[in-house]
Amino acid sequence: MTEGCFDRIALIGIGLIGSSIARDVKELGLAKEVVISTRSAETLRRAEELQLGTHYVASAAAAVKDADLVIVSVPVGASEEVARQISPNLKPGVIVTDVGSTKASVIAQMTPHMPQGVHFIPGHPLAGTEKSGPDAGFAGLFRGRWCIFTPLPDTDPQALDRLKAFWTALGSRIDEMDPQHHDKVLAIVSHLPHIIAYNIVGTADDLETVTESEVIKYSASGFRDFTRLAASDPTMWRDVCLHNRDAILEMLARFSEDLAYLQRAIRWGEGDKLFDLFTRTRAIRRSIIEAGQDVDAPDFGRHALDPKT
Amino acid sequence: MTEGCFDRIALIGIGLIGSSIARDVKELGLAKEVVISTRSAETLRRAEELQLGTHYVASAAAAVKDADLVIVSVPVGASEEVARQISPNLKPGVIVTDVGSTKASVIAQMTPHMPQGVHFIPGHPLAGTEKSGPDAGFAGLFRGRWCIFTPLPDTDPQALDRLKAFWTALGSRIDEMDPQHHDKVLAIVSHLPHIIAYNIVGTADDLETVTESEVIKYSASGFRDFTRLAASDPTMWRDVCLHNRDAILEMLARFSEDLAYLQRAIRWGEGDKLFDLFTRTRAIRRSIIEAGQDVDAPDFGRHALDPKT
Ligand SMILES: NC(=O)c1ccc[n+]([C@@H]2O[C@H](COP(=O)([O-])OP(=O)(O)OC[C@H]3O[C@@H](n4cnc5c(N)ncnc54)[C@H](OP(=O)(O)O)[C@@H]3O)[C@@H](O)[C@H]2O)c1
Ligand SMILES: NC(=O)c1ccc[n+]([C@@H]2O[C@H](COP(=O)([O-])OP(=O)(O)OC[C@H]3O[C@@H](n4cnc5c(N)ncnc54)[C@H](OP(=O)(O)O)[C@@H]3O)[C@@H](O)[C@H]2O)c1
Repeated sequence: MTEGCFDRIALIGIGLIGSSIARDVKELGLAKEVVISTRSAETLRRAEELQLGTHYVASAAAAVKDADLVIVSVPVGASEEVARQISPNLKPGVIVTDVGSTKASVIAQMTPHMPQGVHFIPGHPLAGTEKSGPDAGFAGLFRGRWCIFTPLPDTDPQALDRLKAFWTALGSRIDEMDPQHHDKVLAIVSHLPHIIAYNIVGTADDLETVTESEVIKYSASGFRDFTRLAASDPTMWRDVCLHNRDAILEMLARFSEDLAYLQRAIRWGEGDKLFDLFTRTRAIRRSIIEAGQDVDAPDFGRHALDPKT
Repeated sequence: MTEGCFDRIALIGIGLIGSSIARDVKELGLAKEVVISTRSAETLRRAEELQLGTHYVASAAAAVKDADLVIVSVPVGASEEVARQISPNLKPGVIVTDVGSTKASVIAQMTPHMPQGVHFIPGHPLAGTEKSGPDAGFAGLFRGRWCIFTPLPDTDPQALDRLKAFWTALGSRIDEMDPQHHDKVLAIVSHLPHIIAYNIVGTADDLETVTESEVIKYSASGFRDFTRLAASDPTMWRDVCLHNRDAILEMLARFSEDLAYLQRAIRWGEGDKLFDLFTRTRAIRRSIIEAGQDVDAPDFGRHALDPKT
């Protein structure tokens, strides 16, 4: 079989991530059969309308029958329930993976339900947008982006290689780390930024002296940058907060401590301290652009899309 | 004379904002003469190389002689010094304006130096990017963006109309408010977002358990959105913090209070509270897009510019 190909892939959950995988699999011809299952009849119907797979089944248990690769793409808090449902029908030798944004919790939820002979390999593609649902997905979402695996001590190296070949075929760059480290890294590069964004948008929404319409009208001065992250799916982010609690609380504590220092510098007019921090942070932006992780165009290049913004 | 035109415009400060004004004035033919002055010989030479004006003079005092419109575009903390320098050479009837991001402080700094017969009208175009210096400016920066005036009680209505006509010619939409309200509005839509962005980038930079190269490598998961604001000019932002202290401290206090609530909800696993906030904030994003204040494309449309990002 060609590298990265499978006879039968089962996709459990067909939102932004699941449907983007489905589109890539179809476009690249990575499977003979793609069985799609999702919680609601409505989303399943939509997946069929979009022709995302070859079979559409309401029951996750039925969907995984005879599958060689099962990809679970649901909010992390639903991992255990899905694992419980699919467990009886997993065939020996199948690879089961997920795409959840937190890893230690997903491993704790799913591993106990994985039968002997099943290769469970937790994964997390660092790709996404603030949109959700099957219509939000698109082919090429994972191209050039990292996919992090957090293999278990007893993970079969050949199964891991097959799964890596699959994600490589989707255009991902592959990385490996242990689950605890993954959760710390993601707490700072993703979870804290989202929480801060949600928080500042909430603060602005609650002001009495500045109206909401003023906030919206003048949002281009900086505020709007946060509203994108704060428009992300509430269920996904509630689950991330609840399932990466310790790492998030650690990052939040550091952030608050640093903010108190900054607040004090503002109160006491300590311009040097402000200037030092504001200079240091520029270097990181430069490195991110050099690493090809963001566009260098001013304002994220919004001008190119719409001169009014 | 045509609406919005002046015989002689003096630009004091020729960075991102000053040079963008200069480019528009030239392109639209809004002045017969444009005299440029800036603090350093180097920047003045660069302005001349870029052919941003018609005259280039080292001394701000000399630059404003015979000008009908003087636009001061320097960090807000330099306002008083500039006002002191230009004061003796301002001709009666001249309009003096600024573009500073804080208004009450600029008014307090400049007003005492304005001679009788000079029309001092504080202004703030809500347009900019994270870049600075004369090379960062571009024609059209102000198009479709708000320009807020905070006139003084004795501002001459005719002079105000002339200045509004000038900014309208640059494509700005005009607004008026009192300086204190301006400073509160900007504290939430611009100053707090920048401070938070600087802070989170600083926090990430200081971690021991996650390396800087990991932060950079995986920054597309959310973090990179903050690095753009945190790459803004340190001098400008130090001055903003020092010169809008009270409003910023108020917003920071509210933000921290809200964050403590969120932190507590995470610690105690109160999913409902998280879900409620994460749902409420989506509405604001929608309103911002409906108001034409941001692009609706996922990820700010970065994909359109560079599929790798
Ligand atoms: N969005 C991102 O940027 C991103 C990036 C990387 C990883 N992830 C991770 O990818 C996973 C999926 O995210 P997504 O963005 O694709 O979400 P999404 O677009 O909201 O789709 C979620 C999918 O999960 C199903 N689902 C929701 N709640 C469920 C439950 N309680 N039990 C079973 N199924 C449930 C939904 O089914 P119905 O529609 O039928 O209810 C839908 O098929 C999450 O674990 C997330 O952490 C997301
Ligand atoms: N950037 C934005 O997004 C934005 C948006 C709206 C309003 N503003 C406001 O616009 C003003 C200018 O910002 P900018 O972005 O154009 O800054 P910039 O690109 O850094 O340019 C600053 C200009 O001010 C001069 N300058 C700096 N320090 C000075 C001092 N102590 N005394 C006299 N001149 C000094 C610089 O001169 P040399 O280069 O010769 O030293 C340069 O000409 C600020 O008040 C800012 O708050 C900025």
